[in-house]
Amino acid sequence: MKKLTVLLITITFGLQLQAQKVNQEDSLMLRNIYDMSLLNGKSYDWLDYLSNEIGGRLSGSIQAEQAVNYTESELKELGLDKVWLQPVMVPKWTRGLPEYAYIETGPGKTTITNICALGGSVPTPDGGIKAQVIEVQGLEDLANYGRDQIEGKIVFYNRPMQADLINTFEAYGGCVDQRYAGAMEAAKYGAVGIIVRSMNLRNDDLPHTGAMSYGDTPPDQRIPAAAISTNGADFLSSTLKILPTLKFYFKQNCRTFDDVQSYNVIGEITGSTYPDKYMVVGGHLDSWDLGDGSHDDGAGCVQSMEVLRIFKELNYKPKHSIRVVLFMNEENGLRGGRKYASEAKLKNEEHIFALESDAGGFTPRGFSFDTDAENFAQIESWKPLFEPYYIHSFTKGGSGADIGPLKDGKVVLAGLRPDSQRYFDHHHAASDTFDAVNKRELELGAATMTSLIYLVDKYGTTNEVTKVKN
Amino acid sequence: MKKLTVLLITITFGLQLQAQKVNQEDSLMLRNIYDMSLLNGKSYDWLDYLSNEIGGRLSGSIQAEQAVNYTESELKELGLDKVWLQPVMVPKWTRGLPEYAYIETGPGKTTITNICALGGSVPTPDGGIKAQVIEVQGLEDLANYGRDQIEGKIVFYNRPMQADLINTFEAYGGCVDQRYAGAMEAAKYGAVGIIVRSMNLRNDDLPHTGAMSYGDTPPDQRIPAAAISTNGADFLSSTLKILPTLKFYFKQNCRTFDDVQSYNVIGEITGSTYPDKYMVVGGHLDSWDLGDGSHDDGAGCVQSMEVLRIFKELNYKPKHSIRVVLFMNEENGLRGGRKYASEAKLKNEEHIFALESDAGGFTPRGFSFDTDAENFAQIESWKPLFEPYYIHSFTKGGSGADIGPLKDGKVVLAGLRPDSQRYFDHHHAASDTFDAVNKRELELGAATMTSLIYLVDKYGTTNEVTKVKN
Repeated sequence: MKKLTVLLITITFGLQLQAQKVNQEDSLMLRNIYDMSLLNGKSYDWLDYLSNEIGGRLSGSIQAEQAVNYTESELKELGLDKVWLQPVMVPKWTRGLPEYAYIETGPGKTTITNICALGGSVPTPDGGIKAQVIEVQGLEDLANYGRDQIEGKIVFYNRPMQADLINTFEAYGGCVDQRYAGAMEAAKYGAVGIIVRSMNLRNDDLPHTGAMSYGDTPPDQRIPAAAISTNGADFLSSTLKILPTLKFYFKQNCRTFDDVQSYNVIGEITGSTYPDKYMVVGGHLDSWDLGDGSHDDGAGCVQSMEVLRIFKELNYKPKHSIRVVLFMNEENGLRGGRKYASEAKLKNEEHIFALESDAGGFTPRGFSFDTDAENFAQIESWKPLFEPYYIHSFTKGGSGADIGPLKDGKVVLAGLRPDSQRYFDHHHAASDTFDAVNKRELELGAATMTSLIYLVDKYGTTNEVTKVKN
Repeated sequence: MKKLTVLLITITFGLQLQAQKVNQEDSLMLRNIYDMSLLNGKSYDWLDYLSNEIGGRLSGSIQAEQAVNYTESELKELGLDKVWLQPVMVPKWTRGLPEYAYIETGPGKTTITNICALGGSVPTPDGGIKAQVIEVQGLEDLANYGRDQIEGKIVFYNRPMQADLINTFEAYGGCVDQRYAGAMEAAKYGAVGIIVRSMNLRNDDLPHTGAMSYGDTPPDQRIPAAAISTNGADFLSSTLKILPTLKFYFKQNCRTFDDVQSYNVIGEITGSTYPDKYMVVGGHLDSWDLGDGSHDDGAGCVQSMEVLRIFKELNYKPKHSIRVVLFMNEENGLRGGRKYASEAKLKNEEHIFALESDAGGFTPRGFSFDTDAENFAQIESWKPLFEPYYIHSFTKGGSGADIGPLKDGKVVLAGLRPDSQRYFDHHHAASDTFDAVNKRELELGAATMTSLIYLVDKYGTTNEVTKVKN
């Protein structure tokens, strides 16, 4: 009975809190925000330009530079209080000529298969690499096979994403160690190269690239790393069962250059009451090079720009300073996110909230929050306001890679959580293109982000030094 | 305070009910259902066959017949207790040669535009129809213009779907009267034909067909009706502003034949405890002819078949008799739905529950229920079981066209509610094809439906004559 009483008190308190927050003014404001995004949105046009006029925006590329210039110029059009570029040095890695690979089952018997170099990989020798293949189900398998069975071979990491996980990001998280650390680990056993099953739940012919690291492997011991499509991986695996001595050939001439100058693109509406307290909304402007980076993360960039545009259009003057930050180099370095956070610390800027959209431009389902119980409870009390827009999922968990470096125990971090089912069909692959983004889904995401930023701006976070008054 | 007390009692009752229902057995069963669908599902393969081997399945077509034979044969493979065909006479309307249309702005100055005949329309004369156009925003506009301005012209219904409505089905519901009744109403004012803006929120070049009716218009006064793509409608509308006297030409040779024999396809697992109480899960096997009917409603059919397959695979023996019904002729007659209900009434079969999936194979978001408060409260108490699968939306409202005729004040009717944002990009258009369906989204829908059927079977509805014991 005691438990029930506590429960009832908690519920009563919850309901009161809810009633307090969910007032008609907020409800109307959210409706205006969604109307602006759906009826007079700019996010889709911006994405069209980023994707179709510029294209893939790998850090250090001419396209990344064009994207910096374009978004800076578009933000300047919005009449924000400030727009500037924040310099950051970024790695420059290029894919070079298209990769080439085949499976050889006998003299002259070859089957071409689709691969792509992993981002950061060293090239193969000019003539390529041809070697036997050892299939493993993960990094931990290497020790089981040992140097005897691995040396001189290509290690083929083939643990698939788990299809029974409903959230596909969990399935991704359960596999991506193979891509990230596969080469450095396999090199320890004398492997001559690695190929990794693409991080994709769908069976198709597209290889998916992504970041990998050599850790502290000395340069002369670094082995080339490539991704193979899911269909290619299945074919290779089944062929290995019949002919374990088959050989795999691949050739790639990717290359790492010296770091180059690039920029985070930042725009700000200065707060009317608390100009020295900052809220950030952002995505990352760089992308991989195989597609045009529409979902990852052109969508997050244009949605973040749209947040500030909507505030301007609705003539909403935020209490806090609100910044849109288009981070550079999330994919292969996170230099932009680190730079933004270190500059903020240097300038002693109080950041109270940051929201990132970097999970695709699909129908928004909710948010994930990296914060304490008190702030989470306040945010949860706003759920009824989001109900008319089918935004139901408010969970505790991660936020976003770029805003992660801001974490200081006080700032509330959040990530937009769109429907995840189709995301990895496109992620880091040639199919991450504009046509895979639905205009309404993109716009609903922008409106959902704007709504959250509005509420946090209005009510403040529970751990601001100066409490927000309403 | 009194209100609060009532509220708290309601909540307490709700929580107790919830605790009672959400037990571990159910939780495990749902996990098994989702695993079976995601890891060993058949829905996607079935849909592949229906879409790619058979194609569009308009009532009375050879493809509809093939689909009847195919699904009957697949259901027989499942080892159900009964599989049979329920005869039903259906209308037969054929599109004939591809339609042809252009906008004429002067002698020899024509712009071809994409149209398609609406389902059930009469043809144009062999030479087509050419006439001036009057643009209206809806049926109610006709009276404003009157016979003077309408007679001898083509009426162009151009009220678009409202983009600010979050649920796109609501936007569709707000426009579809133009398509359904546009011809019969315009004929009263002496119009010679109608063209209707496609029911599509996206700007593209695809015309979307769909059912229309002449009501009691005498055959010699029936005028041809066509849909124009959204891009075409915008172009026509803007051209009319410059040149109100432009002429529109269109030609179509669609034709209505005598009714032909067809079938509902039915499979049954006979109930272990209540063999004479029936639960139905279904979709419609017919489709329009422009695409292959993957979303509308191949998806609903294969998901419904999957419900029974999953029960068989998991060796779950339902208490009630569970039928999968693949209804014929939802699109242009609803003969299958009516036939099933009338036969059920004739045989005095007690139907306690029916679930339809006819809103596309997209990520499931929840269900809509046509039932009383008591049943709805019971179903809502199951919400926590669905939470791990991101199924949040349990609303009161409509269910599905095919199961509608079963309504008798007792049977609980339900409709699966997938994400609606992309649905009308494909609905009744050439883009309703297999590649627009995501395997996981389809499978999640099937698992969600199976889970609901399982829970209703286990706990019964609150208005069953004999109460279900657990």
